This record gives sequence, structure tokens and C-alpha cells, in this order.
Amino acid sequence: MSISVVTLERLPKYLRILKEMQLENINNVSSTSIAMELGFNPIQVRKDLASVSKCDGKPGVGFVVNDLINDIEEFLNINKAKDIIVIGAGRLGQALMNYPGFENKIRVVGAFDCDMSKCDNKRIYPMDSLKKYVQNNNIEVAIITVPKDVAQGVCDELIKCGIKVIWNFAPVHLKVPESVKIKNEDLSASLAILLNSN
Amino acid sequence: MSISVVTLERLPKYLRILKEMQLENINNVSSTSIAMELGFNPIQVRKDLASVSKCDGKPGVGFVVNDLINDIEEFLNINKAKDIIVIGAGRLGQALMNYPGFENKIRVVGAFDCDMSKCDNKRIYPMDSLKKYVQNNNIEVAIITVPKDVAQGVCDELIKCGIKVIWNFAPVHLKVPESVKIKNEDLSASLAILLNSN
Repeated sequence: MSISVVTLERLPKYLRILKEMQLENINNVSSTSIAMELGFNPIQVRKDLASVSKCDGKPGVGFVVNDLINDIEEFLNINKAKDIIVIGAGRLGQALMNYPGFENKIRVVGAFDCDMSKCDNKRIYPMDSLKKYVQNNNIEVAIITVPKDVAQGVCDELIKCGIKVIWNFAPVHLKVPESVKIKNEDLSASLAILLNSN
Repeated sequence: MSISVVTLERLPKYLRILKEMQLENINNVSSTSIAMELGFNPIQVRKDLASVSKCDGKPGVGFVVNDLINDIEEFLNINKAKDIIVIGAGRLGQALMNYPGFENKIRVVGAFDCDMSKCDNKRIYPMDSLKKYVQNNNIEVAIITVPKDVAQGVCDELIKCGIKVIWNFAPVHLKVPESVKIKNEDLSASLAILLNSN
């Protein structure tokens, strides 16, 4: 099923508050409460949830929280374990390695750095072990947090190792072949947009 | 002038490669080369640039790089110095304090943390000095990188101190009054979208 990018962007937000409700042992929830919690339009919320879940929010009963969580996770393809690596074990790389907000099945399993003094061979490995690690562990997704001058080189090397999806935090626009998915995460752009939004 | 959010999101990308060209002493550039560099549609690029700049890309000459940079910076309101603070001096907070990709007039001037052992009173200050610092330095923008359990409390305190714009990296949806601008930066959502994009 195909949905719009804006709907796709809202799904993890629904997931987040549904999981908070799950922790508080709330079993049922209405789309109106979800909408209020997030400051969204209730009609939009109902439409979004209908497009990814077969559950229906019965009047007076609402959605079953656990079922809705399962449906969204399945739709987002995050109900299967996914191991990710980070290239660059500086502050940002280590922050992402330890970021508590990723869904529990998405794990940042290791970081790679050319600075041997950072490597502990438990979670931080030397760059020259990258290829072997990626192949032995079937890694397909990598995050780049190296300085911008070396980012394109690292990106090319990742692709040679078999990486299919790259999330780039280096402040430079990286080029990849069409077969590779990339997101150039531009924190500077995010900030500029925030400062200019109404 | 009002432009769409998608155009707004592309402007910092134009700025980035224009600045790279400036460093390489390139004086003129065509919208077609900018489009090729970024993998964008040339017609789109021409339209975007026309909406923010009075420069025109003359056939055979193109845009004057310096003029285009000035126009985009002016449009994005980042030609004036803007000082920003970070609340939470953990790995992510320190990474953002030292992030090399922000435009040069946007400076992260200080971080605040309740852990006194992190405070050096040069760039990292104790939380109880927050209000005085914000007021003395006319700070209007703050980034939140504290653990999610304390994020709403920190957010409320920032608003009491007079902060008008909040960029939240804690994995929780924060609520603010309508007079305050907020972006809940959801890294988990970004990753889910990347994994699901075509």
C-alpha cells in the first residue's frame, strides 16, 4: 500500500504515544485522544490510521492499543530486527549509538573509526575491519558522522562493502548510485526552517 | 514573501553547494549545474531561485555566486547573528555544540546541565543560571537534548525564561503554548522513513 510522505512522517509519532499508553496499561484509545495528544486534526488521524490498520476505532471503545502498535510497526517494517552501523565514533556518532529513541528492534550494533585510540573492539572497531563486519553480519544500513572532507570517500567505501541505505549527518551533499538509498540529514537546514516557520 | 515548505527545505542545500563553489573561487554558476550537483530538476531549481533572489541566471553567464548566497541568506534570515543554547550537555548536546555544519552566524554559545561535574562555566553552565543567562544575552532559541522523562519540565522552564523557539531532540512529543515555535526532531521517524522510502 502506498501512502504520502506526510502520513509516513506522522506514523512514528502515533507509535510513540501509543507505546507510552501501553506502558501506562491503557488498552483502548480513540483517534480523538491521539489527535489531542499530538495537536493534530482528528479527521487526519482517523484517515492516517485507517490507511495502515485494519483495526477500526469503534465509537465508545476506540482502537485496541496493542493491535494498533503492531499494525503500524508492520507497516513501517520495523517489526523485524534491523542492525545498523555508524561510521565515525565522535560525539555525534556516539550519541546516535546510544540514542534511546530508536524503536527497540532497530539496534546500532557498532561504530567504526580510523582513530585506533577510540576502538575497543566491543562496539567501536577500526575502519579496516568494516568490510568483514558488514558481510559477516549482513548489515545493510549505515550512518555517516565523519568530518565532511572524508564523507564522500567513506560513502563510496560503504557502497563497495554492500551497504544499501545511508543516513548522512556530515554537512555535505553525498552522491550515490541509484541503487543506494540516501538521506542527507541537514541539521543546518532543519534549524533554518524552524527559525523561518510561522 | 511566502514560499512552500519544500522550497524552504531546498534553500539550505543550494546555500551549501554555493558556499563550496565560493571556496573554490567559482564566480558564476548556472541553475543547471546546481541542479546536476544536487540531483534536482533544473526547472525546479530555476523556480526556487527566482522566488528568493532578484538575480537572474543569464544564459551563458549564469548566477553570480556571491549575490545568490547573500539573497538566500537574507531570505532565510541567517545573515544576522543568532545565539542559541543547548539544554543537556550529554553526547548529543555536545555534538550539537560543536556541529561544524551550522551557518557561520548561528552560534551555539552555551549548554546547561544539572550535572555540576559537566559544568566548566565557560561553555557549560549549571541549570540554575539558565534564566539569568537567557535574559542577559537575549537568547530566544534553545535546543533540548535532555532525557525524555525530564524534557517537558525543561521545556516549560525555558518558556518561563523567555525562550521563543525550541528544537527538541528528546524522544517525546513536547507541548508548548501557541506563541512558542517548536520542532520535535524525531530521529526514529527519520530513520523509519528512510528505511521505507523508494
